[in-house]
Amino acid sequence: MGFREHLQSICKSCEGAFACSLMGVDGIEVDTHVGGDGAEGVDVKPLLVEYSGLFRSARESAQLNGAGEIVELFVETEKVLTVARMVSPEYYMVVALTPGGNLGKARFLMRVTAPKVKAEL
Amino acid sequence: MGFREHLQSICKSCEGAFACSLMGVDGIEVDTHVGGDGAEGVDVKPLLVEYSGLFRSARESAQLNGAGEIVELFVETEKVLTVARMVSPEYYMVVALTPGGNLGKARFLMRVTAPKVKAEL
Repeated sequence: MGFREHLQSICKSCEGAFACSLMGVDGIEVDTHVGGDGAEGVDVKPLLVEYSGLFRSARESAQLNGAGEIVELFVETEKVLTVARMVSPEYYMVVALTPGGNLGKARFLMRVTAPKVKAEL
Repeated sequence: MGFREHLQSICKSCEGAFACSLMGVDGIEVDTHVGGDGAEGVDVKPLLVEYSGLFRSARESAQLNGAGEIVELFVETEKVLTVARMVSPEYYMVVALTPGGNLGKARFLMRVTAPKVKAEL
């Protein structure tokens, strides 16, 4: 499977997941699959791009204070849940879910899919 | 119970929780309870202060893209798990756990404790 198939597969297998991206930590999107209705009025693609700044800040804070590398980042807002997971030091995967979405399954799928995506980088 | 007792109570009731803070979104700490051994070499207090920048960035990105207010933020690094939850628009609570800590319980305790802390602000 290529990147896109992995992203599609996460969206298809997880209740409430409506977008999944492979992103550079520098904020440059590699690929995104938008596979369902998200929350009304939410611009999901730019949101996921902007969240890359969180990754960079979190990494810097963690490294400065001896906490090691970032593994996972989760942001819940009133309208969207996002879970991001490092794939390699330069790339991460992120999935966006509706508030009632299956967060546990999204985390599990990211955990098992990340090594497969990494193998293709 | 005052702030400190609420923070202590979360640390005491959750396996792996070793620090709990009430913080301003501006990065100014209101109160912190450090109640156990954290990961070796991790400076937990400055880490929690620096993570306030994540809150501000996440809030800005979410508002710009129509995703509403931040509810919860979770950061997992190799040595520390942190879960932060908004208490009011100006304050959030954050708990730090060792990697094997009980994340589900920490989230639950934050959810039930946040309104009690809010009532005291």
